[in-house]
Amino acid sequence: MRENNVDFARRMQEKSELKKIAIQGEPGSNSHLATRQLLGEVELVPCALSVEVLEKLTRSKEADAAVLPVENSLHGAVADHSDLLLRYGVQIVAECSLRIRHALMAVPGVTQEQVNRVLSHPVALSQCRKFFMEHPALEAVPFYDTAGAVKHLMANHVTDAAAIAAPFAADVYGAEILRSGLEDDPKNFTRFFMLTRKEDAEALRPAGSVVNKLSLAFDLPHRPGSLLEALKELVAAGADLTRIDSRPVPGRPWEYTFFVDLRIPSAEAADTIVAGLRQSCREVVELGRYEAAVLPEE
Amino acid sequence: MRENNVDFARRMQEKSELKKIAIQGEPGSNSHLATRQLLGEVELVPCALSVEVLEKLTRSKEADAAVLPVENSLHGAVADHSDLLLRYGVQIVAECSLRIRHALMAVPGVTQEQVNRVLSHPVALSQCRKFFMEHPALEAVPFYDTAGAVKHLMANHVTDAAAIAAPFAADVYGAEILRSGLEDDPKNFTRFFMLTRKEDAEALRPAGSVVNKLSLAFDLPHRPGSLLEALKELVAAGADLTRIDSRPVPGRPWEYTFFVDLRIPSAEAADTIVAGLRQSCREVVELGRYEAAVLPEE
Repeated sequence: MRENNVDFARRMQEKSELKKIAIQGEPGSNSHLATRQLLGEVELVPCALSVEVLEKLTRSKEADAAVLPVENSLHGAVADHSDLLLRYGVQIVAECSLRIRHALMAVPGVTQEQVNRVLSHPVALSQCRKFFMEHPALEAVPFYDTAGAVKHLMANHVTDAAAIAAPFAADVYGAEILRSGLEDDPKNFTRFFMLTRKEDAEALRPAGSVVNKLSLAFDLPHRPGSLLEALKELVAAGADLTRIDSRPVPGRPWEYTFFVDLRIPSAEAADTIVAGLRQSCREVVELGRYEAAVLPEE
Repeated sequence: MRENNVDFARRMQEKSELKKIAIQGEPGSNSHLATRQLLGEVELVPCALSVEVLEKLTRSKEADAAVLPVENSLHGAVADHSDLLLRYGVQIVAECSLRIRHALMAVPGVTQEQVNRVLSHPVALSQCRKFFMEHPALEAVPFYDTAGAVKHLMANHVTDAAAIAAPFAADVYGAEILRSGLEDDPKNFTRFFMLTRKEDAEALRPAGSVVNKLSLAFDLPHRPGSLLEALKELVAAGADLTRIDSRPVPGRPWEYTFFVDLRIPSAEAADTIVAGLRQSCREVVELGRYEAAVLPEE
């Protein structure tokens, strides 16, 4: 069994290499929460775009690691993050699963009655439909980031608008929570990957962590049954497919790169699987081996 | 072999039932072009949101059929369109593949030198990076629709901005093309499905069309190897998997519905495949059987 998150985070922090973590979004965002769950308190390198997260990890090396969302249990894969993992050749060394919570918050002293607009990321707004149906006077206004919306209200002392963000964002910016549990569906989880540069993966993988999960990307030869053959290899090696996604190959219309996450019986199985797959696939890239996250309690 | 598009469109138009076609976006959009490729000149029912397209087809019946993009060769699946097909229980009766072209256009008489902003859909803007790098003085401004941007310029006689849209949009709105071939990657194709209500699928499937493609959605039992078993069924029936996508099942975190497109040897094979898959899958939904589109010339 995995140790608890506090122990995990403590052990990770003891590694002196791990100081700066790049995330997409502002402090107080769900990516910040996922980073805390994985690593405790660390210095954040907030980035406006996901591609900057990868640039700061691999090119400028302003960050020692990165934490990026990979899929949401209601919305599916963050497809272009799969593309980025492959393009930048980074390695996944840990994953976590975060319950997504939406709260309404405003500048302290502002009441819900004073508010006529609600700012948040479009996905967060779309996950609070019931709330907006019950409050038709409130206009939903798209903003680039959930925590960024709270930051904006506080920095500009906006008193006629509220924001929807994780309750944690209220702590970070000193906003006041007007209402919690705005999400339509409480079974709303996002999986995050912790990423390192390829050469640091062994050193930065959590010391006591068990390798029981493997992520791969592969291209298939263009002939019938090729995906079936690849999956046979995986099952023969004792792997259990927990996710499969296909992404287009630029310049080769209607050809795909497959991204798979596998539960594997042991670290040794990872080597067998990669070697086996190389027999039947055009290209096989190991994206990382790590310990499977436990689904958090609801 | 398939007859040419003109004959296909003529035959479709002879069917008196097919008068109004719902699309997402404005006249002059790529969805409009795809509709012309499939059906020739028909009356459009333009909708702001994709969900409205499905509502107008199945609930209010303001449309007899709909044409929706399903995947792009650079950006991948339009994931929530797969969800909508399943949720509204519509049937795919035809598909087409459209080369995506981006042109710069403005109000007639306006020159590129007069322009300081370029309006378009964010995806179109992101596909013309080279053009914006070569013209750093031009600001890329996101707009809700490519053709909608052209409509906006013309309706408001905007003279300091241009729009990026399909050359066809210039014809539709009387705009002037300043420059063609703005797209970074010419191998840029979008596949579209023509959809009907379930009860109309047989009557509205193009009369002479061969059934050699089948689209399905299925849920798998939660046990190792279940996807492999399902794919074995498909291959045993002579099907060639041309696309597989997974989408989350709301309320069941980390469970997925699989969407597959299959080349099949005959219409009879479709029945065998669906029946076979029902043995191993939790739920199997036939999304439609139709004739495979030919990739257009570049």
